[in-house]
Amino acid sequence: MTQTFSAFAGAHVPEIDSIMRGFLKKNSASAKLFEAMDYSVAAGGKRFRPLLLIAAAEFLGQPATAGVYQAASALEMIHTYSLIHDDLPAMDDDELRRGRPTNHKVFGEALAILAGDGLLTEAFHLVSQADLPAEAVLAITQLFANAAGANGMIAGQVLDIQSENRQITLETLQKMHRRKTGALIRAAVAAATALVPHPAEAGSALLRYAEHLGMAFQIRDDLLDVIGDEQTIGKKTGADQALHKSTYVSLLGIAGAETALDDECDHAAAALQQAKAALDVTGQTMLDVILKELTEI
Amino acid sequence: MTQTFSAFAGAHVPEIDSIMRGFLKKNSASAKLFEAMDYSVAAGGKRFRPLLLIAAAEFLGQPATAGVYQAASALEMIHTYSLIHDDLPAMDDDELRRGRPTNHKVFGEALAILAGDGLLTEAFHLVSQADLPAEAVLAITQLFANAAGANGMIAGQVLDIQSENRQITLETLQKMHRRKTGALIRAAVAAATALVPHPAEAGSALLRYAEHLGMAFQIRDDLLDVIGDEQTIGKKTGADQALHKSTYVSLLGIAGAETALDDECDHAAAALQQAKAALDVTGQTMLDVILKELTEI
Repeated sequence: MTQTFSAFAGAHVPEIDSIMRGFLKKNSASAKLFEAMDYSVAAGGKRFRPLLLIAAAEFLGQPATAGVYQAASALEMIHTYSLIHDDLPAMDDDELRRGRPTNHKVFGEALAILAGDGLLTEAFHLVSQADLPAEAVLAITQLFANAAGANGMIAGQVLDIQSENRQITLETLQKMHRRKTGALIRAAVAAATALVPHPAEAGSALLRYAEHLGMAFQIRDDLLDVIGDEQTIGKKTGADQALHKSTYVSLLGIAGAETALDDECDHAAAALQQAKAALDVTGQTMLDVILKELTEI
Repeated sequence: MTQTFSAFAGAHVPEIDSIMRGFLKKNSASAKLFEAMDYSVAAGGKRFRPLLLIAAAEFLGQPATAGVYQAASALEMIHTYSLIHDDLPAMDDDELRRGRPTNHKVFGEALAILAGDGLLTEAFHLVSQADLPAEAVLAITQLFANAAGANGMIAGQVLDIQSENRQITLETLQKMHRRKTGALIRAAVAAATALVPHPAEAGSALLRYAEHLGMAFQIRDDLLDVIGDEQTIGKKTGADQALHKSTYVSLLGIAGAETALDDECDHAAAALQQAKAALDVTGQTMLDVILKELTEI
């Protein structure tokens, strides 16, 4: 019997949180800086990316070790930094994130920029000290930097800014999200494949799973911005429209976006089946459960 | 006969520049993002940190290899990102840097923040792919992340912001600069010691040299802000005073700051002598030349 997502989260999130906060505390020479970084780290969220990393490692037969947790925590720190910078007045100018005032609303812009810089730098610091073989640390550093950098998340954010106040094509939107959201989600699964030996076929199927999962994740986010409940999702709805951003909903309509979400989930499920076949895994895994979470909005 | 600093720079800067720009170009999915990162990278400056790294490696007997150049270039990318973020309106709000408009003045705040984020991320990306043994890559990643992170440069920047508009003690000022400027300068020399095997005594002496060099560097910077020539230093003078920042000059006066600069240079020279003795090196080295550069303002 597979765990539910919330039981899986309950089993792993305390360790992820403890590693992040402990590492940041230990490495902060400034109490104020720690406070600002910790504020956003402690704001919670689903810990989707680190849990996906852990689930993918377990899928490949590797239970969560100290090194797996450290890699997962570093990924969440990178994600958290990106939220702080995305929320800045010069970017999306958001006031609410995960149900609380955004970092710059509490600490001011300067400290919010530095808290983001700190989280990003300390993420690589944490990976570099992870309890893993040197080759694995190297592989994960490369994966995370590539996914978070100018070829990944940051390029996606630039595309996002460039797309404000103008109509873009579905193709451009997909390209943007593949980088902005997809790259880090893919990196979670890719990190697991870098940590655990596996048949090549299983690895490439898992990466396809992650890519479709990432797209599904973003379409769902766009849908929630329109039909979601502010209370539940912890941020202002209608933000995309206010910024005149093109979204799956603005380009495809609600029904069209729902169909696109279903399609991505179907593709992810098919890829996951291939990965299972390559590993002779049967029955429901946590990767199935995670996918199912996204299907139900 | 030792080279002059400018001959040494002339021999190495083209390779450093070529690595930085080539790596950023290859890894940028967005042309605009590359343009913004490249703008600040191409703005030049003395390339003090990477040249110091190369000089320290040579001092220990290791001529510049591809891996040494890559580590040096990554360090300069970290330095460049920090300048872009420091110049932002929410921080020092500078309009001029290295004689050209600051990044956000040309590309806007959003892109400047992202260009900084990109340079920082790509610096770790570059180190992770450097042509060096895995253990050396790990050591350098740790050194750079520690120096640039919440225990180093970013903590220094937070202290700097907290010190605006109020009088601080000399001790606080030193603590701030040890992190804000000193940490990355120390990391240049520490990286060289991580790359080249050497007697422990030479290594610790070299790090002391780097620490005093870093303090000298900052005192000199404070002096130039008051007595320097805008044309030569490429940024507005009097900026510290305008922001009501405590500096060596505001705390010690010009003559006092000049004495403090001499003291730091003397300590650096003494440490360098110890490193030379430990390695049986005689005569002038590039590390002497670099120190001499700072003595003459």
